[in-house]
Amino acid sequence: MDLSQVKFDEQGLVPVVVQDAKTGEVLTLAYANREALEETLRTRRSTFYSRSRKTLWRKGETSGNIQEVVEVLLDCDGDAVVYRVLPHGPACHTGERSCFHRPLLSGEPSLGFVLSKVYATIQERLKTLPEGSYVAKLHQAGLDRILKKIGEEAGEVIIAAKNQNPEEVRWEATDLLFHLLIVLAELGLTPEDLARTLWERHRPPGGPAPS
Amino acid sequence: MDLSQVKFDEQGLVPVVVQDAKTGEVLTLAYANREALEETLRTRRSTFYSRSRKTLWRKGETSGNIQEVVEVLLDCDGDAVVYRVLPHGPACHTGERSCFHRPLLSGEPSLGFVLSKVYATIQERLKTLPEGSYVAKLHQAGLDRILKKIGEEAGEVIIAAKNQNPEEVRWEATDLLFHLLIVLAELGLTPEDLARTLWERHRPPGGPAPS
Repeated sequence: MDLSQVKFDEQGLVPVVVQDAKTGEVLTLAYANREALEETLRTRRSTFYSRSRKTLWRKGETSGNIQEVVEVLLDCDGDAVVYRVLPHGPACHTGERSCFHRPLLSGEPSLGFVLSKVYATIQERLKTLPEGSYVAKLHQAGLDRILKKIGEEAGEVIIAAKNQNPEEVRWEATDLLFHLLIVLAELGLTPEDLARTLWERHRPPGGPAPS
Repeated sequence: MDLSQVKFDEQGLVPVVVQDAKTGEVLTLAYANREALEETLRTRRSTFYSRSRKTLWRKGETSGNIQEVVEVLLDCDGDAVVYRVLPHGPACHTGERSCFHRPLLSGEPSLGFVLSKVYATIQERLKTLPEGSYVAKLHQAGLDRILKKIGEEAGEVIIAAKNQNPEEVRWEATDLLFHLLIVLAELGLTPEDLARTLWERHRPPGGPAPS
């Protein structure tokens, strides 16, 4: 690992943007010294330097809320770093998933966030089968029932598109996508499995190579 | 707008993580003073404070590469901010989309990134119709041909799931998703339109409300 391009500041630190690798959420802005960055790259666990405690800070060491690091990116100037992580538990000491939970201006959640969250809800429903849940009901009716929905919703997309009705297509394509997520969950697959496969086949020229 | 919760440092600055609202990419780490933050919230354009030039820095003022700001988030401590933006052109002075383009550890792209990028490629193909492009060929064959693919791929997902074959489902569901993206593009819809609709219907309890 070559850290010669990293420009630590006069206190020997570099700011680290911690991002959820699946949902894309920015979780925390923290700081790393050389030792923390080296340990992160070696152990693939988020490690920082605590400016208040003036020590190495191994995220999750006491709370258990570790972060698996899947990617580390350096910026053009070499003076800022991104850790893309798979968090185990909340990133924030308040118990919130992300430290950035106070909107000064509210917007819509991103595509990656929505798909990850809706899929996680589907998984939860399949596990706990709560009364009144549509996903639970569909699961209890059996795989054939779910697959009939795939056929049905695909048919509705086709009809809506033949009607040249974008609103109807938006509606029916969402239904199809939702039921496709249920099929994935039933088969033990994730939206990330589809994203990876899609990227392997269709990444544009110059796009980052699949790992 | 209430900036009383923002803790500016001794130089009157707060670090700003700039993130692509669609793809989830972290684009830049910059800094804002109170004036820059106020202007960002008022104009909904990324505005920073340039520490080297010691002036307000209106992103894109000279390059034209402005960033529309769709969300601004403050962290738990009040000492870091996220701008979620729709960038017009590259964020980085090197011409790269993101300043964070130098991997110290390489990982796979996120779901939001892959879907946004593949969809953008489809849009580009539909616009330029390059020779040898599958999307261009499908478009030229007409909407009926594309919709037949939806029916065909949905059928293949059904058969793969009936075969209890996750690998086959992964493959066929990716095909279905890809052709669904083509239908969206043909009808002038985006993956974000589906995400918004999905979130309106299925957001888990406690999830952020759709705007």
